Amino acid sequence: MMTDTDATPPQDAQPINAVTVDAILAAVELGARERLVSLLDPLHEADIADLLEQITVDERHRLVDLWGTDLEGEFLSELSEGVRDDLLTHIDDEILASAVQEMETDDLVYLVEDLGEAQQAKVLDALDGADRVAVEASLQYDEDTAGRLMSSEMVVAPRHWTVGEAIDFMRAEDDLPEQFYKIILVDAGMKVLGTVPLGRVMAHRREVALDSIADLEPRVFRADQPGEEVAYAFNQYHLISAPVIDADERLVGVITIDDAIEVLQDETEADMKRLAGVGNEELSDSVWSTTKLRFPWLAINLATAVLASLVIAQFDAVITAVVALAVLMPIVASMGGNAATQTLTVAVRALATRDISRANALRIIRREALVGLLNGAAFAVITGIISLVWFGSPVLGVVIGVAMVLNLLVAGLAGILIPMGLERVGADPALASGTFVTTVTDVVGFFAFLGLASLFLL
Amino acid sequence: MMTDTDATPPQDAQPINAVTVDAILAAVELGARERLVSLLDPLHEADIADLLEQITVDERHRLVDLWGTDLEGEFLSELSEGVRDDLLTHIDDEILASAVQEMETDDLVYLVEDLGEAQQAKVLDALDGADRVAVEASLQYDEDTAGRLMSSEMVVAPRHWTVGEAIDFMRAEDDLPEQFYKIILVDAGMKVLGTVPLGRVMAHRREVALDSIADLEPRVFRADQPGEEVAYAFNQYHLISAPVIDADERLVGVITIDDAIEVLQDETEADMKRLAGVGNEELSDSVWSTTKLRFPWLAINLATAVLASLVIAQFDAVITAVVALAVLMPIVASMGGNAATQTLTVAVRALATRDISRANALRIIRREALVGLLNGAAFAVITGIISLVWFGSPVLGVVIGVAMVLNLLVAGLAGILIPMGLERVGADPALASGTFVTTVTDVVGFFAFLGLASLFLL
Repeated sequence: MMTDTDATPPQDAQPINAVTVDAILAAVELGARERLVSLLDPLHEADIADLLEQITVDERHRLVDLWGTDLEGEFLSELSEGVRDDLLTHIDDEILASAVQEMETDDLVYLVEDLGEAQQAKVLDALDGADRVAVEASLQYDEDTAGRLMSSEMVVAPRHWTVGEAIDFMRAEDDLPEQFYKIILVDAGMKVLGTVPLGRVMAHRREVALDSIADLEPRVFRADQPGEEVAYAFNQYHLISAPVIDADERLVGVITIDDAIEVLQDETEADMKRLAGVGNEELSDSVWSTTKLRFPWLAINLATAVLASLVIAQFDAVITAVVALAVLMPIVASMGGNAATQTLTVAVRALATRDISRANALRIIRREALVGLLNGAAFAVITGIISLVWFGSPVLGVVIGVAMVLNLLVAGLAGILIPMGLERVGADPALASGTFVTTVTDVVGFFAFLGLASLFLL
Repeated sequence: MMTDTDATPPQDAQPINAVTVDAILAAVELGARERLVSLLDPLHEADIADLLEQITVDERHRLVDLWGTDLEGEFLSELSEGVRDDLLTHIDDEILASAVQEMETDDLVYLVEDLGEAQQAKVLDALDGADRVAVEASLQYDEDTAGRLMSSEMVVAPRHWTVGEAIDFMRAEDDLPEQFYKIILVDAGMKVLGTVPLGRVMAHRREVALDSIADLEPRVFRADQPGEEVAYAFNQYHLISAPVIDADERLVGVITIDDAIEVLQDETEADMKRLAGVGNEELSDSVWSTTKLRFPWLAINLATAVLASLVIAQFDAVITAVVALAVLMPIVASMGGNAATQTLTVAVRALATRDISRANALRIIRREALVGLLNGAAFAVITGIISLVWFGSPVLGVVIGVAMVLNLLVAGLAGILIPMGLERVGADPALASGTFVTTVTDVVGFFAFLGLASLFLL
């Protein structure tokens, strides 16, 4: 969907502020329908969606009930998945059917793709024939593909047309997309021959042939191509819109930049959350579902923590003899974990933006090892001195120093090699990296520190 | 900049592959200029920039030297800052001057904004009068503002024009922007009155007045507005381009979606890195500068780790008596740190996307506390049983269990309250959150576990 036609004062950076929310909730409380409609009317559908995500389930249901027949469907495609599914189940069938009439097909696909069959049929039945066919065609493609992102709203011209013919066609056409940026030139078999940006159509005289001013090898996506690749290409090549073709190379739709941005943002957010051991949770999720989503990650962390404890348990004799070791050992582990997380985050990000290639992989690994060694040396000196001053033992200072160098070197190597290895075998570099890497640094850190201590302090 | 007109086969998701890189480096090695130019010619400038970021400094210099007078400036604005500054210093003055001629003013601003005065003057001198004025005007605004993102390439029309007059003007104009999406309607004082999407111009007959089909209250940004707000609005409202006005409300430029995406991606990446304790580093940075950039974050982590050690040191008597405590205590700290990082990441992300507001703040805090309690209870049972089985001590099992509940509750609260507090006082919620939060969970975890152990195990 592409609309930026709404009338809103420019300075208002956050239109959904506490005052608006309070006024809207008060209207809902009082059942003041006209007041509610007049409060919602100036808001952009994305802001209405934000509002609905921020209030409670109960308030949300009462709001849409009161809104009733004035409800416009566009905000539904702006909702996060959890709230969207809740509302689709709640909203009255007839109201939903009329609300979705004006929506664009890519937004409709987002709306219905996770619905059960019965509910999906309910929405599809409400659509006119062409929209319904387009939505059903889109749903044929797997989730997270270009086919799911595309819209069927586009302007297509036969290659032999002139600028004048294109303009006459558009003037005569009642059902042009609300926003479009290119005319797509096709042959009789709907094969894409080129695209003409609207600005270029405008800049030429009526008699100029469209194909003489077209980009004849535009970037085109296959409908079964992963959405992630589409997002990468839109970002890398500053695309605004691009045609989508099916397996027979026939034009089936067009993807616009806003859909690509959404995928791009979702990918980055997912990496960020996976690194932190958070699954696909939403702020509007319930306590119980959030608890369940976070549990497995914590369980994995527990398993790795127990592994580290098993290492410590091997050295109980030296810890009993020198209790300073128990005091200092979290420092070694914490520094290793922190250094590894630094490298890991940079690596995961660089892999996502395809900045690591065969050309620079070895150089980057070497760099991380050297950075680990250098910071390891620096913190070896610092922690050595702290330990010496604190416990008065030069040997303890040397032991923690050596363990620090070793652990920060290993942290750098694990932080880069583990995500690169996961990527190489086709796994998600962000997914389990954090756990692997912390396990490595914990085990190495405790083993080096306590092992050296057993050798030199017992 | 907005170009997607390059001829590249659609299927090629990663055009800079190992084969291309090897062929290009071989050409550089042999000094085969024509071969180099023919290899670079089909590549998009963004891919050339990626290539230059992936090879060594030395290879990079030799490549641009060999490229010489065929060098086209567009790729310069696609480079990361470090590589950009290195190349601007390296490239011959005359070649640079001719390379920047064709660039758009927003890209030129990115190119010169961090240059020293002498070098900036060198590039500015190479520009024609209008471009130079536009770049200098843009540089008057602070970094990271709308004024720095805007381009002066736009199509403006007086409000009384008709569709026909606008089309005639564009046909007559030699110097239209390569890509534009809207006509901006202005009054005699250059005040923005509305915008007309090109598709709508095309859909209407020549005699229709532009202002009758214009969006009369378009979203407009002030040149001194933070780029972050611009990026948020482009993403939230699916904008494609938007006018920029100065303090006197005069139209001074236009921001397009690609610039907004870049800010959006940069912000998210920055949050991700700050959470991991990584500064503004780039993959192409040297070992030494990376080491220096990461050192302060590790130093802060050391300080907090020492704080945790000070807590442990208070309990040396009980650790000497029950060495199992030393074995188990990293588990308590690690689980707390992990749970806190989960909450923290969700909170930082939600604050960045403005999903936390006064309307839902209390509910979210309550949710995090409850999730912490529930997972705390679950892992209290699990770790309690592990400890009981491992060390045969029921009391030890209860002690670790109680410490676990406490620590995961505190982790949830710290993970949400600290970033929200930082945001409230105008600080960056991602910046120091990680350190604060881990300090809290380490201190609470060790204190609860060892404190309870002293009470019940001594």
